[in-house]
Amino acid sequence: MIKHKLILSYDGTAYSGWQVQKNATSIQTLVQEALSTILRSPLSLVGAGRTDSGVHALGQVAHFTTVSEIDRGKTLLSLNGLLPSAIRALSLESVSADFHARYSAKSKLYRYHLQLGPLRDPFKQRYSLFVPYPLDLELLRSATLEFIGKRDFTSFSNEAHRGSAAKNPVRTLESIELRQEGNSLYLEFKGEGFLYKMVRNIVGTLLDVARGKVPLSALPEIFAAKDRKCASPTAPAHGLFLVEVIYPSGH
Amino acid sequence: MIKHKLILSYDGTAYSGWQVQKNATSIQTLVQEALSTILRSPLSLVGAGRTDSGVHALGQVAHFTTVSEIDRGKTLLSLNGLLPSAIRALSLESVSADFHARYSAKSKLYRYHLQLGPLRDPFKQRYSLFVPYPLDLELLRSATLEFIGKRDFTSFSNEAHRGSAAKNPVRTLESIELRQEGNSLYLEFKGEGFLYKMVRNIVGTLLDVARGKVPLSALPEIFAAKDRKCASPTAPAHGLFLVEVIYPSGH
Repeated sequence: MIKHKLILSYDGTAYSGWQVQKNATSIQTLVQEALSTILRSPLSLVGAGRTDSGVHALGQVAHFTTVSEIDRGKTLLSLNGLLPSAIRALSLESVSADFHARYSAKSKLYRYHLQLGPLRDPFKQRYSLFVPYPLDLELLRSATLEFIGKRDFTSFSNEAHRGSAAKNPVRTLESIELRQEGNSLYLEFKGEGFLYKMVRNIVGTLLDVARGKVPLSALPEIFAAKDRKCASPTAPAHGLFLVEVIYPSGH
Repeated sequence: MIKHKLILSYDGTAYSGWQVQKNATSIQTLVQEALSTILRSPLSLVGAGRTDSGVHALGQVAHFTTVSEIDRGKTLLSLNGLLPSAIRALSLESVSADFHARYSAKSKLYRYHLQLGPLRDPFKQRYSLFVPYPLDLELLRSATLEFIGKRDFTSFSNEAHRGSAAKNPVRTLESIELRQEGNSLYLEFKGEGFLYKMVRNIVGTLLDVARGKVPLSALPEIFAAKDRKCASPTAPAHGLFLVEVIYPSGH
């Protein structure tokens, strides 16, 4: 068996997310079906991480195996020919048999794009959350520090809504970086693993702190409550990008 | 009567262009109706230039008059509240009575955004033309020089299709600038006036020269033919932006 690593970029607007779902078009389904057609053999694609409905990706990673060697250059071209233009295959490489898109990943980088007001830019609305109210960026920066490190993220996870509450809710967030370019504010989250809707739930709470709706001092209590209802609403999907999946060198 | 100058930005994707048309939603109609509602009086909006269906604007200019003074700050806020988020009013100023959005304009700046292949970027497709074939940028640059200056642009105008063939087809193109940023190529056209679809027709021909389909030496003949059919097809609307309308200082 030969293993292949595929890197994908997609505009998630029109799709039901990465994972195969009943009665909805998922990105995984589209890519899997296109590859099966090209390689004339059914195959299954394993993604590094599920992106939710409406979430975008600059560098989603997936793997699949084939019985015999394939022409990767040709397959990549055919794949981009078959896929809708909102989904692009960026690269296709061979990897060692022990590579697993999800389990081999060392960390993941997500970016949340905020567009600061007062004026909404018509050309950014598809890929960013417009924030009409003023934000205290120093307060926002202080709040991010409360999320760094190894913590129980139950209050910032929707795992319970997915019926997977038994899952270990402890995750390690390596860093949250803020970057401002004009009226764009980027929040970059790096961590070894993320719970369901964790980034969007953290963004929702960070925004409430930065606008003065939730005091910075309340964050330890929100963590301690281990209750999703104690934190702020989930930030919308269209501002979120899976930027990169990082593997140990050699993969 | 008091005269007002309004600067607008819009994503033209969903609209039938600037000008009021029967059975289609034009940007002029939407803005005019919103202003009439806010100011509680019917008014008519005069734009600096018609942008076609699907063409975008970063700085379209329009003027309108009111009988008495208005609160421009408040009107601007209300206008952005009423308009769809794809259309934004950037500024509203008072201007002297002799200002005319179209006739006072000294020149206009249009930008055509090309996305160079081989890989299509899913996040750029809404606002750029993807060019899958290789372009000779030196040849493209040489070709732009053939369009600069005062010329009869009949071969690059669709005025005849609009039943306005009698209009003077001589226009002066001040400059065409090329700017490359990564795989984005911007073509900026500055001129005192443009014929119907002139920028998109020039872009269509420039692309054919740059890909080797039309020889550079054929351009003088194409101009001399004064026949739209001798030039290349019109480049699509979604790559075009009206960037700025320039007025003499004082306006």
